[in-house]
Amino acid sequence: VNRTYAIIGTGAVGALYGAWLARAGHDVHFLARSDYEHIRAHGLAVDSVKGSFVLPHVNVYADASAMPKCDVVAITLKTTENRILPEVLPHVVKDNGAVLVMQNGLGYEERAAAIVGTGPTVMGVLCFVCSNKTGPGSISHLDFGHITICQYTGNGTPAGITAAMKDIAGDFEKAGVTVALAPDLSIARWKKLVWNVPYNGLSVVLNAATDELMKNPHSRDLVKRLMQEVCRGAAACGHPVEDAFIEEMLSYTDSMTPYQTSMKIDFERRRPMEVDSIFGAPLEAAKKAGADLPLLSMLYEELKYLDAKNLTPAFHP
Amino acid sequence: VNRTYAIIGTGAVGALYGAWLARAGHDVHFLARSDYEHIRAHGLAVDSVKGSFVLPHVNVYADASAMPKCDVVAITLKTTENRILPEVLPHVVKDNGAVLVMQNGLGYEERAAAIVGTGPTVMGVLCFVCSNKTGPGSISHLDFGHITICQYTGNGTPAGITAAMKDIAGDFEKAGVTVALAPDLSIARWKKLVWNVPYNGLSVVLNAATDELMKNPHSRDLVKRLMQEVCRGAAACGHPVEDAFIEEMLSYTDSMTPYQTSMKIDFERRRPMEVDSIFGAPLEAAKKAGADLPLLSMLYEELKYLDAKNLTPAFHP
Repeated sequence: VNRTYAIIGTGAVGALYGAWLARAGHDVHFLARSDYEHIRAHGLAVDSVKGSFVLPHVNVYADASAMPKCDVVAITLKTTENRILPEVLPHVVKDNGAVLVMQNGLGYEERAAAIVGTGPTVMGVLCFVCSNKTGPGSISHLDFGHITICQYTGNGTPAGITAAMKDIAGDFEKAGVTVALAPDLSIARWKKLVWNVPYNGLSVVLNAATDELMKNPHSRDLVKRLMQEVCRGAAACGHPVEDAFIEEMLSYTDSMTPYQTSMKIDFERRRPMEVDSIFGAPLEAAKKAGADLPLLSMLYEELKYLDAKNLTPAFHP
Repeated sequence: VNRTYAIIGTGAVGALYGAWLARAGHDVHFLARSDYEHIRAHGLAVDSVKGSFVLPHVNVYADASAMPKCDVVAITLKTTENRILPEVLPHVVKDNGAVLVMQNGLGYEERAAAIVGTGPTVMGVLCFVCSNKTGPGSISHLDFGHITICQYTGNGTPAGITAAMKDIAGDFEKAGVTVALAPDLSIARWKKLVWNVPYNGLSVVLNAATDELMKNPHSRDLVKRLMQEVCRGAAACGHPVEDAFIEEMLSYTDSMTPYQTSMKIDFERRRPMEVDSIFGAPLEAAKKAGADLPLLSMLYEELKYLDAKNLTPAFHP
C-alpha cells in the first residue's frame, strides 16, 4: 500500500515532514492558509542540513472540504489554531485511517480522538527537530529531525508497540526520517516537555537562543531546575521519567546548532504562543496530582503576561 | 546646629534629597562623576510633582578628597558602585557624625560601619520615591518621597528610636520630606524588599512599568506570590513582616503614577543592575536560615543572565 497523507498546517513542521513524505513518493495533501496562493504557484522549498530540495508542484488546499479523505492525517498546526479541527478532521480522515498529533503539549490526542471517534487510530508523534518557516512555502531545517511515535489508547494505559505504529514508522523511515517507537504516550509527552518547558519558555523571557541559555551558568542552572520540576510533575502524574534523561537533554542541547525556539519566533512575529499547551496543561495535570511546581508556574505567568501584551495592537516588542 | 551634608552619588536619589536639603538652608556637598562638569556649570534642576526648582550653584566635587568633613554623609550610590566607599567615606564623615545608607538591599549598613569604625552613627534610610535622572544634573520626581529612618546597632538588635534619628528626621522634615522612624532596621529592610523584589525584577524581565504589572492578572498574581516569598524569607531570618503589609504594598502600587523602576532604567541604559543587593543578599540570608525561596531564586537567575548579557559590548537590547 502507498498510504496517502493529509498535512493539516503547512508550517515549520508540517511542510518539512510533508515534503519529505511527498519526495518519497507518497500522495500528500497540504492544508495551508496564508501561504496557499504562494504554494499553489511555487510549491515548497526545503533548505535542509540533510539536503535541500524544491517540490515545484504540491497538492495544496485553502479549504479542508476540498481535500480527499486520506489514510493518515498529520495535525501540524500550532495548538493555538486547534479550533479549526472539529471542522477539518472529519473531512480528511478515512474511517480506518490514522491521525498523527504532531504538536507539543498534553491532551491533544484525547481531543483529536473525541473529534474523529473510534474508527481512526490516534497517535502522538513527537518531533525533535529544529526548523523554522523562513517565508511563504519556505522551510529552513537546521538540525535533527527524528520522531517518536506512540499510540493513544483512550484509557491511559500504554499501547505498547502496535502494527499500526510500525506501518507509519516505515513510511517516515523510507522518507529519510529516523523513527523511535515508544510504548507509553504519556511518558513520551512528559519527556518532550522536559525540553520544551525550559527552552521555549526561557528563550522568550530572556530573549535568548539555546546556546546562550546553555553558556551562562545562571540560565543553565535554571534550565536544569525547570527540567527537574517537569520530572517531578511527570512522577506525580504516574508517568515517571528516569533521572538520567535530564543530563541527556542537556547534552542534546549542548550539541545543537544554536536555535531560536518556535515559541521565540512566534513571539517575535507577534503570533499567539503555545503557553497553555506547553505550560498550562502540565501545570494543571501536576496540580490535580497534588504536585506544586513553583518555577514552572512562574514561567507560565511570565509568558501569559508577555503573550497578552504581545497580542495587544499598540505594542511593539 | 545647621548640620552639613555630604551626598555620595548625585543620581535620582542623591540629587533629589540633597537638593531639598540645600534648598532648606543646609550646607550640602555633592560627589558626582559623569555629571560633574555640568553640575559645576549649571547646578541641579529638579522637576518635581511637589514643586520644581533649580539650584544654579551647588558645592560639587569630582574627587572626595577635596570635600570637607560633614556632619551627615548620605550614601546614594547604586550598590554596584560601592567599591569606591572605602576610599571615600573616611574623607567625608566627622568622627561624631552620621552615615545614612540610602540604598536598597541587605547588609550595606554593616559594610559602611566596617569602613567608618565606631565613631560615626550608621543609619539605614529607606526611600519610597519615584524619581529618575533625566539628564546631567536633571532629576524628575514623579511620586511619593517619604523616607523611613532606622539606626544600625551592629549586633542585630533593634535600636529603638534614638535622639540621633530624631535629629536627622528634623532636617529632612524641614526640607519638606515626610519621615517615619522605625525601631528595627532589619524588619524595615525586609519590608522594603517586599516592594523592590517583585517590581524591580519583573519590570526588567517583562519589560513593564508598574501599572502594566498590576493590570494583567498573571503578573499581578506573580507580584503577590513574590511578596509572600520575601515575607517567608523575612520570617525565617527572625524579622517577621505582618501579613497585612502585602495588601498595603499592592494598594500603594495601584495608587502610584505609572513608574519605570530604577532597575529597568539601569537595564535600558546598559548599566549594571542591583541584582546582588536586592535579590542575591535576601536569597543568601534566607538560605542560611533554612528557607527555600524558589520564585525569588528564579527571578535572581533570570536577572543575572540579563545583566551579564546587557553588559556584553556587542549586545543591544
